[in-house]
Amino acid sequence: MRVTVLVRPKAGILDPQGEAVRASLEKLGYPVSGARVGRVVDLELATGDVTEARTQVERMCAELLANPLIESVEIEIEAERE
Amino acid sequence: MRVTVLVRPKAGILDPQGEAVRASLEKLGYPVSGARVGRVVDLELATGDVTEARTQVERMCAELLANPLIESVEIEIEAERE
Repeated sequence: MRVTVLVRPKAGILDPQGEAVRASLEKLGYPVSGARVGRVVDLELATGDVTEARTQVERMCAELLANPLIESVEIEIEAERE
Repeated sequence: MRVTVLVRPKAGILDPQGEAVRASLEKLGYPVSGARVGRVVDLELATGDVTEARTQVERMCAELLANPLIESVEIEIEAERE
């Protein structure tokens, strides 16, 4: 089962990479008032059970994939999207 | 209008960060057969027109946000998701 995890800097947290993207886009002539850059992690899990997959991925986020102090996490499970 | 751009390493392209994530998750005891890491870019655009937004963001991807040789891009426009 494929799971996509979106890890973004929380609102209010400084995001220098996003600010660099925003400034560069502005310099290129695009009217962009804000840009934030995070990570997308695609995981291929052994389990076929949606509930189990979500539980596992939530634990992975807490242990490795994200820093809950400064990052928010969005979990998209393939079976739910279809 | 908010637009989310997902930039991922193309299939077949080496992804050391994803491989590190996969190995670390395995070491933590999670049965993950694959992991790929990319970027998520959230943009706040001035335009309210979906078609115009898509055209602009496609150009931004070509000019700055992604390397089309090694990365694939997925564009999600807020109005379309709701």
